[in-house]
Amino acid sequence: MTLKKSPLAPATFPDLPEIAGVRFACGNSGMRYKGRDDVMLAEFAPGTTVAGVFTKNTMPGAPVDWDRKILSIGIARGLVVNAGIANVFTGAAGLKTVEDTATAAAQLLNAPPEHIYIASTGVIGEPVPTEKITNLLPRLAEDLSIDGGKSAANCILTTDTFAKGAAATAKIGEKEVMIAGFAKGSGMIAPDMATMLAFLYTDAAIPADVLQQMLSEANEKSFNCVTVDSDTSTSDSVLLFATGRAENGPPVDASGESLANFKKALLEVMTDLAQQVARDGEGASKFITVKVTGAESDSAAKTIALAIANSPLVKTAIAGEDANWGRVIMAVGKSGEKANRDKMNLKIGGVLIAENGSRAPSYQETAVTPHMKGQEIELEVDVAVGNGSAFAWTCDLTHGYIEINADYRS
Amino acid sequence: MTLKKSPLAPATFPDLPEIAGVRFACGNSGMRYKGRDDVMLAEFAPGTTVAGVFTKNTMPGAPVDWDRKILSIGIARGLVVNAGIANVFTGAAGLKTVEDTATAAAQLLNAPPEHIYIASTGVIGEPVPTEKITNLLPRLAEDLSIDGGKSAANCILTTDTFAKGAAATAKIGEKEVMIAGFAKGSGMIAPDMATMLAFLYTDAAIPADVLQQMLSEANEKSFNCVTVDSDTSTSDSVLLFATGRAENGPPVDASGESLANFKKALLEVMTDLAQQVARDGEGASKFITVKVTGAESDSAAKTIALAIANSPLVKTAIAGEDANWGRVIMAVGKSGEKANRDKMNLKIGGVLIAENGSRAPSYQETAVTPHMKGQEIELEVDVAVGNGSAFAWTCDLTHGYIEINADYRS
Repeated sequence: MTLKKSPLAPATFPDLPEIAGVRFACGNSGMRYKGRDDVMLAEFAPGTTVAGVFTKNTMPGAPVDWDRKILSIGIARGLVVNAGIANVFTGAAGLKTVEDTATAAAQLLNAPPEHIYIASTGVIGEPVPTEKITNLLPRLAEDLSIDGGKSAANCILTTDTFAKGAAATAKIGEKEVMIAGFAKGSGMIAPDMATMLAFLYTDAAIPADVLQQMLSEANEKSFNCVTVDSDTSTSDSVLLFATGRAENGPPVDASGESLANFKKALLEVMTDLAQQVARDGEGASKFITVKVTGAESDSAAKTIALAIANSPLVKTAIAGEDANWGRVIMAVGKSGEKANRDKMNLKIGGVLIAENGSRAPSYQETAVTPHMKGQEIELEVDVAVGNGSAFAWTCDLTHGYIEINADYRS
Repeated sequence: MTLKKSPLAPATFPDLPEIAGVRFACGNSGMRYKGRDDVMLAEFAPGTTVAGVFTKNTMPGAPVDWDRKILSIGIARGLVVNAGIANVFTGAAGLKTVEDTATAAAQLLNAPPEHIYIASTGVIGEPVPTEKITNLLPRLAEDLSIDGGKSAANCILTTDTFAKGAAATAKIGEKEVMIAGFAKGSGMIAPDMATMLAFLYTDAAIPADVLQQMLSEANEKSFNCVTVDSDTSTSDSVLLFATGRAENGPPVDASGESLANFKKALLEVMTDLAQQVARDGEGASKFITVKVTGAESDSAAKTIALAIANSPLVKTAIAGEDANWGRVIMAVGKSGEKANRDKMNLKIGGVLIAENGSRAPSYQETAVTPHMKGQEIELEVDVAVGNGSAFAWTCDLTHGYIEINADYRS
């Protein structure tokens, strides 16, 4: 099946900056895709620190097991990603694939295997032909290039219809540093996290434990706010590599003022990538932003926002361009979080539709019709019990989703 | 939009027995539907006890608020149900609709309003024209008939494509008693509970507190195991009325041997109705039974079973007749419950597909192809950590669901 580019895709792929200490190379392994690259090798300069967050699915793939294990070391020299067949539910053979891949890359990059990160995405439950990856690695090691970010962003895609990249600059003290990243994901997308891989890299010098704290925090407000279909992948991984080549004085903790600007830029890049994932949601015709305010806590607000963003009835109503506010309030109630039914308000596209738990006297459906016909839908719910707030991003649920996920054999 | 009858519908509507002490009447209110009845009045003989379980959605409709409030009295003389516009998110006006309806029915049945139960289903967020209901009630009170069960089962339908009924007999001591019931529901169906209304009635004499305990227990293993789209309705109600006309000696508690046979029959009727709801799931082309064994507890097993039954990726794969076992195991991991990835087994249609967490060496896809092409799909997962087990029932996710829920305006 050939997929049409999502109508919600950004106009162009951004210029990813070259970042000192990071090089990429890509190639075709022949394991599944023809006419495109499907294995990516990244090399990081000696001294690169790393942080990672992974799927909360309790049945992770072997690469997630591996990365989690080596993360405590905090040093990264390489990253190998393959697309097409995910190394998931593959038993002992899957673990061996990871170990063999890490060992092969480690030899080429002159590092121990425990400094090599692995990620894998694609069909699950099929054996991964390890040699098709390891045979390719020597050539990739020769091809490593500092301007390979765009090719790498394309190489890791599966059912995605466009490559996703983002970048920003930040200051740490007087030093300007750069952050760049790319991601893939368009189905089996739900927080914690998604069939989503994201790789971020910066030339900042930041100790691994500080990096980890910043990544975890930003992840809660970015990738963990995105959902396509509520299904949580077994392979989700977000990795952040810091080469230290900017030679800023490494900050000692994540909470201080010295990293405030960096954290802001990191969140920007991650939010941008996360939203691009929702914009490429399988079958998406509309991008939906859900904003919840007035909840008991930020965490309660996020639970409510995701209940709305995951509701098939809300998502199909939006696909049908219907401002079906009853379904939105149903989803609030389904979340289980505290909300005041008789005080809550709902706006769609800025138009007040429900007020104090029933239809607003002022509401005319025609006022919201132009918004519903657009590609960017905004739902704002105030649940009237506290000060907690959160966002979630998703897409509508259309025939396209069924085509991709049910009709893929025809 | 005219809906085609679900291909999974039972061949015929069952013969609902006449049950002493219960009479029904139906009529058309003119509030939404043309050419069919949409308001139902039931009368219960003096002395009828009642039990109820309701949606866990925290934004319930006004009828649920009312029924919950009067349930502690434990006595029922009447029931009024309307279909087409659900009395939900209607504020103070909605509460008045309920009170006015209960008062009108109470006068006609010579009972206090607090003995009159109310239920409502249909579009949410629209005002309910109370008088269209109350004006109809005097005629319905005159038309009450002991053989009105089938008409009543039809009268309460909304997007359902067939009426759902079930009946059984049981013994309490030497007395034979009868249980009958009918239900509606086909979308916004998820445990706790569904846009699902079910009304059960028996001629047994059973105190209200005993009745309540039995209903709650049976509900956990029947209606709360059904899901169509994970969306939890605001109006779900299951009510059980016991007229006492069988003149059995009323049992004093629910746990004794004297009610064992009755409980079994009640669970049978409720399971039958619950499965009919899944068989009428919006757009359903296949009925899916999920069986989970080996979980830490029955409750953990149920969480896992429902995670599988609610997964859009599992449901679309089944719609596509693909035995995509990786998606099933993904859903197990998404549930958050304990499972042993490297020991778990999965069968589809009795064919062992995954063994010890990866593809079974014996597995050939052709072995399961005929099962996947059928209308009754069975998934069995053993998660290999304990002795807990549970069932869930659902349907596949097809273009029909999108048509009903997104294209309903076209």
